[in-house]
Amino acid sequence: MTNDHVPRTAWYILAKSRELKHAPIARTLFGTPLVLFRDENGRAGALVDRCPHRNAPLSQGCVERGAVECPYHGWRFDTQGRCVEVPGLHPSRALPKFRVGSHAVIERGGWIWVFGTPGTEPDTEPFEFPFVDDPRYTRVPETIEAEGTVRDVAENALDVPHTAFLHRGLFRTAKVRNDIEVVVRRGKDRVEAEYIGEPRPSGIIGRLLAPQGGEVIHFDRFIAPAIAQVEYRLGDDAHLVATTVLTPLAATKTLIAAEVAFRLPVKVPTSVFVPILKPIALQILGQDLRMLKTIREHAEAFGGLRYASTELDVLGPHIDALLSGNDVDSASLGEVARIRMHV
Amino acid sequence: MTNDHVPRTAWYILAKSRELKHAPIARTLFGTPLVLFRDENGRAGALVDRCPHRNAPLSQGCVERGAVECPYHGWRFDTQGRCVEVPGLHPSRALPKFRVGSHAVIERGGWIWVFGTPGTEPDTEPFEFPFVDDPRYTRVPETIEAEGTVRDVAENALDVPHTAFLHRGLFRTAKVRNDIEVVVRRGKDRVEAEYIGEPRPSGIIGRLLAPQGGEVIHFDRFIAPAIAQVEYRLGDDAHLVATTVLTPLAATKTLIAAEVAFRLPVKVPTSVFVPILKPIALQILGQDLRMLKTIREHAEAFGGLRYASTELDVLGPHIDALLSGNDVDSASLGEVARIRMHV
Amino acid sequence: MTNDHVPRTAWYILAKSRELKHAPIARTLFGTPLVLFRDENGRAGALVDRCPHRNAPLSQGCVERGAVECPYHGWRFDTQGRCVEVPGLHPSRALPKFRVGSHAVIERGGWIWVFGTPGTEPDTEPFEFPFVDDPRYTRVPETIEAEGTVRDVAENALDVPHTAFLHRGLFRTAKVRNDIEVVVRRGKDRVEAEYIGEPRPSGIIGRLLAPQGGEVIHFDRFIAPAIAQVEYRLGDDAHLVATTVLTPLAATKTLIAAEVAFRLPVKVPTSVFVPILKPIALQILGQDLRMLKTIREHAEAFGGLRYASTELDVLGPHIDALLSGNDVDSASLGEVARIRMHV
Repeated sequence: MTNDHVPRTAWYILAKSRELKHAPIARTLFGTPLVLFRDENGRAGALVDRCPHRNAPLSQGCVERGAVECPYHGWRFDTQGRCVEVPGLHPSRALPKFRVGSHAVIERGGWIWVFGTPGTEPDTEPFEFPFVDDPRYTRVPETIEAEGTVRDVAENALDVPHTAFLHRGLFRTAKVRNDIEVVVRRGKDRVEAEYIGEPRPSGIIGRLLAPQGGEVIHFDRFIAPAIAQVEYRLGDDAHLVATTVLTPLAATKTLIAAEVAFRLPVKVPTSVFVPILKPIALQILGQDLRMLKTIREHAEAFGGLRYASTELDVLGPHIDALLSGNDVDSASLGEVARIRMHV
Repeated sequence: MTNDHVPRTAWYILAKSRELKHAPIARTLFGTPLVLFRDENGRAGALVDRCPHRNAPLSQGCVERGAVECPYHGWRFDTQGRCVEVPGLHPSRALPKFRVGSHAVIERGGWIWVFGTPGTEPDTEPFEFPFVDDPRYTRVPETIEAEGTVRDVAENALDVPHTAFLHRGLFRTAKVRNDIEVVVRRGKDRVEAEYIGEPRPSGIIGRLLAPQGGEVIHFDRFIAPAIAQVEYRLGDDAHLVATTVLTPLAATKTLIAAEVAFRLPVKVPTSVFVPILKPIALQILGQDLRMLKTIREHAEAFGGLRYASTELDVLGPHIDALLSGNDVDSASLGEVARIRMHV
Repeated sequence: MTNDHVPRTAWYILAKSRELKHAPIARTLFGTPLVLFRDENGRAGALVDRCPHRNAPLSQGCVERGAVECPYHGWRFDTQGRCVEVPGLHPSRALPKFRVGSHAVIERGGWIWVFGTPGTEPDTEPFEFPFVDDPRYTRVPETIEAEGTVRDVAENALDVPHTAFLHRGLFRTAKVRNDIEVVVRRGKDRVEAEYIGEPRPSGIIGRLLAPQGGEVIHFDRFIAPAIAQVEYRLGDDAHLVATTVLTPLAATKTLIAAEVAFRLPVKVPTSVFVPILKPIALQILGQDLRMLKTIREHAEAFGGLRYASTELDVLGPHIDALLSGNDVDSASLGEVARIRMHV
């Protein structure tokens, strides 16, 4: 299964706002090259990145009077994809009606969201990251590309049993095991797993966040079409929510646009923890991305990925169903499974 | 469209004469590897570069008594492709009748021309470069490989509007624009565009060649099957003709074999200008080659190149027609279009 | 023709015994990735190198209590391919019945032999290298990968005429030629060529082994499914047998597992010659491997390898027949051809 099965009529993140300055930038979405640029009012546009004339990438040109200019012959296109100049054409002649595909764009909270299909005016809004306006939370945004599908990145992000092996020492250790109960709840557009009886993670991050130990409240969530969310709470005041929007860049390439929001029961500003926690988080993420790339490349010798699952793969089947558009006809979350894990 | 559509029954350049010394050299033509070598009289031969025995490339062997020797078992072949020795075969046994394909070769004016199909004795002659025997002209030969088709390289070489953008500052600038009239004339085996009212190009080359400015006489020509020619004349004495033979090395790879002939109304030998002009010409050519490579690679994400044209693409449709063998039934050139450009 | 035609129900060498220590190692056989590892008793196992769960390569994990452990979620498998642990699974639940393919393994004489098909208990034994228990012989084992098929590597190893060209100066020279008679004998599972009247090879190896010159006894043999053997004898006491087992790693990749056994009529221990002879042998082998790679890559431009042969290719047709399983119905060797060579 590739990202070709991920829903197209949805909003996806293609860049952080501050990545898009005066020069255009190149991205792909569902394998199609796009060019992002800003018009004279600073509003972002997203066009199919191909000049209709001789197919040069517009993203390798510049922005001139709010329109992106082709690097080959200087044709210019506005954010709606309309051709606004063909240099050399005599002033007496009408401009050709050539147009390039244009995607709806919404910029919000530091992110540039692009709608998955061109030429449509969507009647939905992008997902809202949590705690955006809550001053008690420190928020850390980050983007990174993964060699893997939305499905595989999401399952990996929301999977508990691999942490003791792939992230040995960093997150959990395989040494001490505990009985945990997992309650799986399914809603119309989402699925969540609640972990009950889980002690503070025994790795370095757990020890930093909760030196005194204790039991945590832990949720893993997948929200259609492509959002993975991990939530940890320890007592009333320590709270961490990592939300990742997964954008299908190409058939087996996914952009992870993450925002980690957290608060801690400490006197110092929580932002002082960022330089300590971020390298560890990136190390864990790096191990995950290498593994996702490895299994995909390795599977080529066997004709592609083919999985066998156990009850420990609590969210995978639900992610598959949600990506296939199989909604549950229910506004609220309902329990669908209860599993005992020994991790 | 690839070079598979370029006519095969024609002469193409595969090397400069001085590139072929005692060792054989490897080239491709229409995607087929060829080996070029010289016999004992110094006459060049061109064979399909594969030993029939175990398929080793003959071009990796040496030349022994005028025949190219396979590096694996030492089989030798003459310029007609006949096997002249199989080492180890007992003198009492007849040589096997194995032959490798042989292409007709003509060496002239410092170039090695090879006919496009093997096993034929062509009844045509290669193209004659202009001013070969005119002592007033300095001639500069050069070869370079392009990632692109004969069609795309030719159109690029003969295209005016891109110069102000892709070669900004070097050739033309987009700043000052002029009204120019373009007359397109079509003949049996060729098409030419004459630019009327064109001021001296405003870039560095124009300023070097004609410091005093003035109006130029400018022709762009495509001559079937694969020759592009640009001619500039300024007054009676300044004259430059750049002729390029385009050889289809492979489906999307083309050899540019160029000869620039020029004379100037100066007292010093015109050859002193070569070290000044050549680096600039190569810089312009480099920009063109990078763009041709870029559009070809970029188009892969869209299922291949697909062009939209305006009347400014004055020669492209005629190049297509000439490459498809659509001759016009006329010995002399006849006007087929008149366009106003604002460049 | 690729290695897909090489018989699968046979024993092949995948590693030297001392290459397999505590960590698992990765190999391929007929293009399928395998993992080799040792159980708690030191016995080697060979499994298909893919965890059924999420397809991670087991070879990138470790060995834990005699079972190979998946690096992603820690699932463990014994040498029979049985899943022996799924970490996280509650002790009250039965282990899943997931199994990975397991190949029979026999370790003997310093080599790890693996049967070509998984899930079978072979009723044959691996080939026995000669002189394993003979103290008069110095034995030198070596492995190296070739880009080429079993057929092409075998033919190259057993081919005489190329030595004067590809190995010019190292083995034979093309300068002096001799009439040699070659007798080809065919048996049920093998073919051999005996060279009669051959002088001591004129290159550096010949001069080292037999400074006084003389006539040699020389056999080249191919033994089904994939063993090539070269034997030289000079007088009663100088004797060299180079035996190579050719393992089809992938369609066009072959492992050469060689053992050279030799004795010499000298007072010093023959092992002192190893540091002198080995670099020369590796240089010759390197020339052969580069040529096999070259012809395979070069043939792609021509739609694949296509050979033309003469009577000098004495063993090639018989190797083809033996690899196709065309047995001769005879227990003993019978003469099938007699050829005169002038090498």
